[in-house]
Amino acid sequence: MIPVQPQRFLEDLHALRAFGAAGVGKGVVRPAFSEADIASRDWLAGKMQEAGLTPVFDPLGSLFGLAEGPSLLMGSHSDSQPEGGWLDGALGVIAALEVARASKEAGGPAVSVVSFQDEEGRFGVTTGSSVWGGNISLEQADKLVDGDGVSLAEARAAMGARGGDFVDPARFSGFIEMHIEQGPHLITSGEKVGVVGAIVGIRDMKVTFGGQQNHAGTTPMELRRDAFQGLSAFNARINERFRNVVTPTTVWTIGHVSLYPNASSIVPGRVTFSMQWRDGDSDRLGRMEEIIRDTAAQVAAEMGLTLDYGPMLGLEPVAMDARLRGALEAAAEAEAPGNWRVLPSGALHDATNVARLMPVSMLFVPSIGGISHDFAEDTQEADLVTGLNVLARAVAAL
Amino acid sequence: MIPVQPQRFLEDLHALRAFGAAGVGKGVVRPAFSEADIASRDWLAGKMQEAGLTPVFDPLGSLFGLAEGPSLLMGSHSDSQPEGGWLDGALGVIAALEVARASKEAGGPAVSVVSFQDEEGRFGVTTGSSVWGGNISLEQADKLVDGDGVSLAEARAAMGARGGDFVDPARFSGFIEMHIEQGPHLITSGEKVGVVGAIVGIRDMKVTFGGQQNHAGTTPMELRRDAFQGLSAFNARINERFRNVVTPTTVWTIGHVSLYPNASSIVPGRVTFSMQWRDGDSDRLGRMEEIIRDTAAQVAAEMGLTLDYGPMLGLEPVAMDARLRGALEAAAEAEAPGNWRVLPSGALHDATNVARLMPVSMLFVPSIGGISHDFAEDTQEADLVTGLNVLARAVAAL
Repeated sequence: MIPVQPQRFLEDLHALRAFGAAGVGKGVVRPAFSEADIASRDWLAGKMQEAGLTPVFDPLGSLFGLAEGPSLLMGSHSDSQPEGGWLDGALGVIAALEVARASKEAGGPAVSVVSFQDEEGRFGVTTGSSVWGGNISLEQADKLVDGDGVSLAEARAAMGARGGDFVDPARFSGFIEMHIEQGPHLITSGEKVGVVGAIVGIRDMKVTFGGQQNHAGTTPMELRRDAFQGLSAFNARINERFRNVVTPTTVWTIGHVSLYPNASSIVPGRVTFSMQWRDGDSDRLGRMEEIIRDTAAQVAAEMGLTLDYGPMLGLEPVAMDARLRGALEAAAEAEAPGNWRVLPSGALHDATNVARLMPVSMLFVPSIGGISHDFAEDTQEADLVTGLNVLARAVAAL
Repeated sequence: MIPVQPQRFLEDLHALRAFGAAGVGKGVVRPAFSEADIASRDWLAGKMQEAGLTPVFDPLGSLFGLAEGPSLLMGSHSDSQPEGGWLDGALGVIAALEVARASKEAGGPAVSVVSFQDEEGRFGVTTGSSVWGGNISLEQADKLVDGDGVSLAEARAAMGARGGDFVDPARFSGFIEMHIEQGPHLITSGEKVGVVGAIVGIRDMKVTFGGQQNHAGTTPMELRRDAFQGLSAFNARINERFRNVVTPTTVWTIGHVSLYPNASSIVPGRVTFSMQWRDGDSDRLGRMEEIIRDTAAQVAAEMGLTLDYGPMLGLEPVAMDARLRGALEAAAEAEAPGNWRVLPSGALHDATNVARLMPVSMLFVPSIGGISHDFAEDTQEADLVTGLNVLARAVAAL
């Protein structure tokens, strides 16, 4: 067992929160490359140094605290949403710092720490770990622009002389990321920690039904080819047909709808909508896709609509490494006997990208109300400490 | 019987089409106060003069051709949609001109002619007849702006010195408007003319369901309060419940949908949509409103959504005058024995506003393919002439 110090861990977590503290409760505004973000990374680099780690910024601004020689990598990200909470990312970074520090002090296993840059996607999605993991090149990433038209190349210039080379992933034996759940499973069940079984895969595509735009006063119901009615029928039928295929953790969402011409006196001639679905099992994602395409074709044929698909975004589920996951499970049972579970991660995390480079595993602690990406995000401090203790126990056992 | 001349009528109709002729087929671009519109009104004023009528522009640019003394008023509008056909409005104006001219030549009943301005709603809806009918004041109308931000006051300045005073409605004994059907009933049944029983009433309101905006990856299906799912369920249920209440000519439309935040990865937190329904019977409109409000409240309660309504636009059905309508029915039976029908008008017309001032009635001729507000709008010339003959016979009998 590595002798982590919960008080020191919580103090550092609150200290990090002071960079960009905003809004109500424990809110934080610390988006990637903001003044608060850069200042917090400088503070974190100092903490790494104090802990006997060598701080290194990579070209994207991801900050590594390197142990000497081969080591286990732990961490997450310290940038926040435009309006975020104090734990999303920060928890995994400061817990990693405490485990690395305590392990070094006690002569335990070598642990390095990382805070990836722009996990929250001011540019793209999980940008820092995406470039490090080789998903996209630095050149491609530099062309990404944020909502205000600022390019990543321009934004990372604010890092000044900090940026060095990329860190060689070969020096790490694996990666463990602790994170808040960002969902309601643990808080609802009362369980203290969750060991992630897989990060879910995502399918996301645009679907378009084309009908006949027409006068809403003079076109009888039986002669209409109403694109909105197609969408509504499609939605009702997939909800019904999915019941035979999904599990309680499968999710699907129609979150975007564009109706044309979108006027109250005109029968809609066209609708484009997003269909997104997520699950930890590739086969299930595929069966759902069959149902979606089959149902859309049925509805189009019955209602006299045309049917078109946009390109499908596909991210495969990422299974967690059996050895790392086993260590987390054993530690969870020791720290919270009978009071933990295996669950999928419904959100993407840096671990998704790091999995291209090395074995990865993830640990969740409960989110109060299941809330995240909001100033109201929070977790009981006792639960934060339980998560820290599970990490410390698992690392000692590896 | 007034000796109308079908050839002269068709020649004038084609001559009017030359003002703003555009697009494919017999398309016309002649929106209110455009150069083509003003030029066509000057041409029409000349034709009125030739026919022994006194042309008078009112302040809105509606053009009257006045017979001496008390008279029956006939007409429609000669402005077009931004992309319209050659008959929508123009047919009723030129048929009125031919009936008035032929009647005057034959010493028949006194008939005046009108071409209302901006029926197609560059500003508001049926603007010219709406002001004449006292729905809105000239001062209010002057503040209306078109899609480019031009006010009606600015637009009607293009009429120059043409505009005079409003015409006193007391000089007219009634109003008859012939119009293309703009729907598929007559063309589908093969009937030659339709006598309008009522111009349908309209109810139109915005409905808002409020749910809980949430992460589309981490929020389990059973905990979602998804505003889009509320809309879809509402739509399916009203379609089902309306079946017991509606007739084949009742229509209802969800033509506008705004989803918030409208992103594929976010469970929709709010949806605002339009609910519009039309019928010739006030009671039925009321029963449909009850079903709508009851169903929306049910869906909101079951799905944990909030429910809000915007203001409801309500236009009551306009019954046609029994005497005028009877004359049209008798004339229809004489000109097309057994081959006509009574039907409601699903669209608004200038007659809706004129009904506030005097008895009104309307006659429809078939629209090929039920198409209007499109360059492809058209009607067989034989059907146009049948309509003209029904008008002439009815006016002679009044």
